[in-house]
Amino acid sequence: MKRLALSDEDAEARRLVISWMTKAGMEVRIDQIGNVYATRPGTDRTLPCVLMGSHIDTVPTGGAFDGTLGVLGAIEVVRTLNENHVTTLRDIEVGFFTEEEGVRFGTDMLGSAVTAGRITLDDAHALTDDDGHTVADELVRTGFDGPAHHRRPIPHAYIECHIEQGPILAGAGVEVGLVTGVQSISWQRLTVRGEAAHAGTTPIEYRHDAGLIAAEVIVKLRRMCDSGTYGALRATVGKITFGPGQTNVIPDTATLTIELRNPVDQQMSAAEEHLADVVRDLTARHGVQTTLDRMAKTAVVPFDEQVQKLIARTADDLGLDYAQAMSGAGHDAQEISAICPTAMIFVAGENNGISHTPKECSNPRA
Amino acid sequence: MKRLALSDEDAEARRLVISWMTKAGMEVRIDQIGNVYATRPGTDRTLPCVLMGSHIDTVPTGGAFDGTLGVLGAIEVVRTLNENHVTTLRDIEVGFFTEEEGVRFGTDMLGSAVTAGRITLDDAHALTDDDGHTVADELVRTGFDGPAHHRRPIPHAYIECHIEQGPILAGAGVEVGLVTGVQSISWQRLTVRGEAAHAGTTPIEYRHDAGLIAAEVIVKLRRMCDSGTYGALRATVGKITFGPGQTNVIPDTATLTIELRNPVDQQMSAAEEHLADVVRDLTARHGVQTTLDRMAKTAVVPFDEQVQKLIARTADDLGLDYAQAMSGAGHDAQEISAICPTAMIFVAGENNGISHTPKECSNPRA
Repeated sequence: MKRLALSDEDAEARRLVISWMTKAGMEVRIDQIGNVYATRPGTDRTLPCVLMGSHIDTVPTGGAFDGTLGVLGAIEVVRTLNENHVTTLRDIEVGFFTEEEGVRFGTDMLGSAVTAGRITLDDAHALTDDDGHTVADELVRTGFDGPAHHRRPIPHAYIECHIEQGPILAGAGVEVGLVTGVQSISWQRLTVRGEAAHAGTTPIEYRHDAGLIAAEVIVKLRRMCDSGTYGALRATVGKITFGPGQTNVIPDTATLTIELRNPVDQQMSAAEEHLADVVRDLTARHGVQTTLDRMAKTAVVPFDEQVQKLIARTADDLGLDYAQAMSGAGHDAQEISAICPTAMIFVAGENNGISHTPKECSNPRA
Repeated sequence: MKRLALSDEDAEARRLVISWMTKAGMEVRIDQIGNVYATRPGTDRTLPCVLMGSHIDTVPTGGAFDGTLGVLGAIEVVRTLNENHVTTLRDIEVGFFTEEEGVRFGTDMLGSAVTAGRITLDDAHALTDDDGHTVADELVRTGFDGPAHHRRPIPHAYIECHIEQGPILAGAGVEVGLVTGVQSISWQRLTVRGEAAHAGTTPIEYRHDAGLIAAEVIVKLRRMCDSGTYGALRATVGKITFGPGQTNVIPDTATLTIELRNPVDQQMSAAEEHLADVVRDLTARHGVQTTLDRMAKTAVVPFDEQVQKLIARTADDLGLDYAQAMSGAGHDAQEISAICPTAMIFVAGENNGISHTPKECSNPRA
């Protein structure tokens, strides 16, 4: 699946999902950041709704499940209510949010962040993709520059179903994850400046090898994760470059991204402090210059306990095994949790819950 | 200095150097790979000549000394002989070789390798630069497609003066390096294939992080150098890439160059074997796939002891301090040593002998 936010493919998928919403008897509205909401009326329309949903955009090499499961699953809930002639007190809304992946316009959870008020509509509209197209222009081009509010009416509660994107539920033989929150995320960029020199003629003790510092940091981060000292710390270096980048020249620059996740804010802070110490020590020992720049940081987002209890009770009623889980990834739910009681349901995935690839797969209960 | 082989700048410099050769009374000939030789006749012209020289091409951000010192120094020798009306038994030739740096056409010591027979003239002519220009075309374009032999007559001996490009002579307070040979060089490419996965949701123990393996290898190479187990081993990783190269995706591929130098062949072999063991161990421990591909390997090139003794005796006569040194870099002398007794004279450089930069500087004796 390649369905980047507000691309032609995304627009086509949006129209298809809207057709299913309409067929399920729901009334659809589109807001000014392109979020789509469909309503099944309750008996007291003056009460805030219960909102369900997720997103349908994907990364460039995405799978079929990711956010889509939470949107189509919510429509299936409505269909099931319809088939069984169930009326609800409150309106039920099914929504999907624009640019959750952040791949095209560089900011993830964009639509939910706008509706929850963390990002202004103007800032969101002004974001551009690599070709210089703005969000505003692409909303108009695809016909999803809706007339509705851009800060939606506060829901009574929000529930998002999503694939786990990890191996824990399947490993524990459990089908349902009761998500307690989203772990904290820290993105930093480490830049090392050493000294380029001839690989053949420069003795080891004279070197100021920027690449070596980068490698030492990567290895040390892994040791920090393995040590248990920082709880369930996860550290990843996904991007790296060496300059000048020649086989026989000692690197004078190394740039790498350091992304940390931790389910406990204090353990995240301790890990960040230790990383800074490690970098400081390497800087002094190898006579290089280093800068650690913050790219992003979010604290732990705890989900609502009442909503979690409701999910647990329902799973019990249905005889489904469940386990508590902390979300490793960011989700629209973390934005919406700022405005109403929120929780998430995770679904176990095959192949260690591999995601963002066509191998993504979650099977219905056998 | 930017004087890439057979560029307009190189051609202009070649004409200038030839004018100085001619002014010094020498007769110039150009061979089929563009090597330039100038002859000062001896009293017995039937004897093989004594050849001196180096190269005048530079890397893109080169300095004033590298190579050029050995060519202009050799012309200065001839001028001094002229001024002092010294006659020699043998012809003295001053030469400079095409594309020593290997930066433009990808093969270093090209001109000397052709004349010494390691590379055929046809293969050399067919090499192309990044814009698709061949060596043959550029020789014609610049007017340096000479008519002379392409395998030159065997000299009686070859002496090359060159900057040290390292800190050892200056550190020892010595002006002249008596070069005993060129250390062995090993270039390998390590490719690691792991598994891309979500940085936030994938627990550490489930990861097959190609980038981590790359970092572990870089750190281990440094430990090998520091240990002394492999003698004066020098290891450099100058190029690295991670794929897919996203901040929040565990790398599924890592590719890096590994360049090793060692003045002792057996210690080079031992280092290569240990590196292979390290890679094998990491491969098994982290569940990744790895391949180590050989890019280049040259054994230690020992220089001629008689020529070294002559240099030492001459330095003694002149009251110059000297020290034995092994060349860390490749030089035309290692090619020419295949056809005649050869040695090199190193000159100490400022700033730890920094080279391939405008900072390159060697001062005349105070």
